[in-house]
Amino acid sequence: MTNSNSAVVVEKGLIKVSIMYPYAEGKTFNMEYYETKHMPMVAGFLGTNLVRYTIDKGVASGLPNTALPYMAVGSFYVKSLADYQAAIAPNRDAIRSDFANYTNVAPIILVSEVVR
Amino acid sequence: MTNSNSAVVVEKGLIKVSIMYPYAEGKTFNMEYYETKHMPMVAGFLGTNLVRYTIDKGVASGLPNTALPYMAVGSFYVKSLADYQAAIAPNRDAIRSDFANYTNVAPIILVSEVVR
Repeated sequence: MTNSNSAVVVEKGLIKVSIMYPYAEGKTFNMEYYETKHMPMVAGFLGTNLVRYTIDKGVASGLPNTALPYMAVGSFYVKSLADYQAAIAPNRDAIRSDFANYTNVAPIILVSEVVR
Repeated sequence: MTNSNSAVVVEKGLIKVSIMYPYAEGKTFNMEYYETKHMPMVAGFLGTNLVRYTIDKGVASGLPNTALPYMAVGSFYVKSLADYQAAIAPNRDAIRSDFANYTNVAPIILVSEVVR
């Protein structure tokens, strides 16, 4: 696969929607499926509102004697939160039903603003 | 302040260390201090290992009827986790003692790998 989005500049003031998959014993995450199927599908729903999306693979906790907090985090950088929500709403069932193809954990979702 | 780091390309394979400040009632976070004092101080410890750092301000949960998960997330993109740890270790007391200047919550830390 290509990584052509890397050069797209993420700017202060953009909205970032991060979908975070907590680690716990017995929980699984298929990164290959997530990267090649799930995230491109969701990105396709977002159209020109989407500036970039990123994927992080959790490898460790940064604090001693604590468990890995998240197995993976996917983030969409968008210009408008309202447009993001309007694009996701009619596709929510398709997105949620795809979860079972790569994980057995429910994500938490953080909406944030890019400060820097 | 400037935002000149925006054009720096974050590449697949880099290590990302994210310091995440959970939201809870009574917990506070001073973004202005964090952005102008704390993060630049830590970035200064990292030298050329640091490719970029980012700051996100949490604004909402992306799921209905759930609380904001994090008030803020700061992330350092570095080439080497070992070099990051070696740079932070001798400065850990300075970093931790600065926490009280901007927050009253203990962060969690996620070490991840940039997949995309």
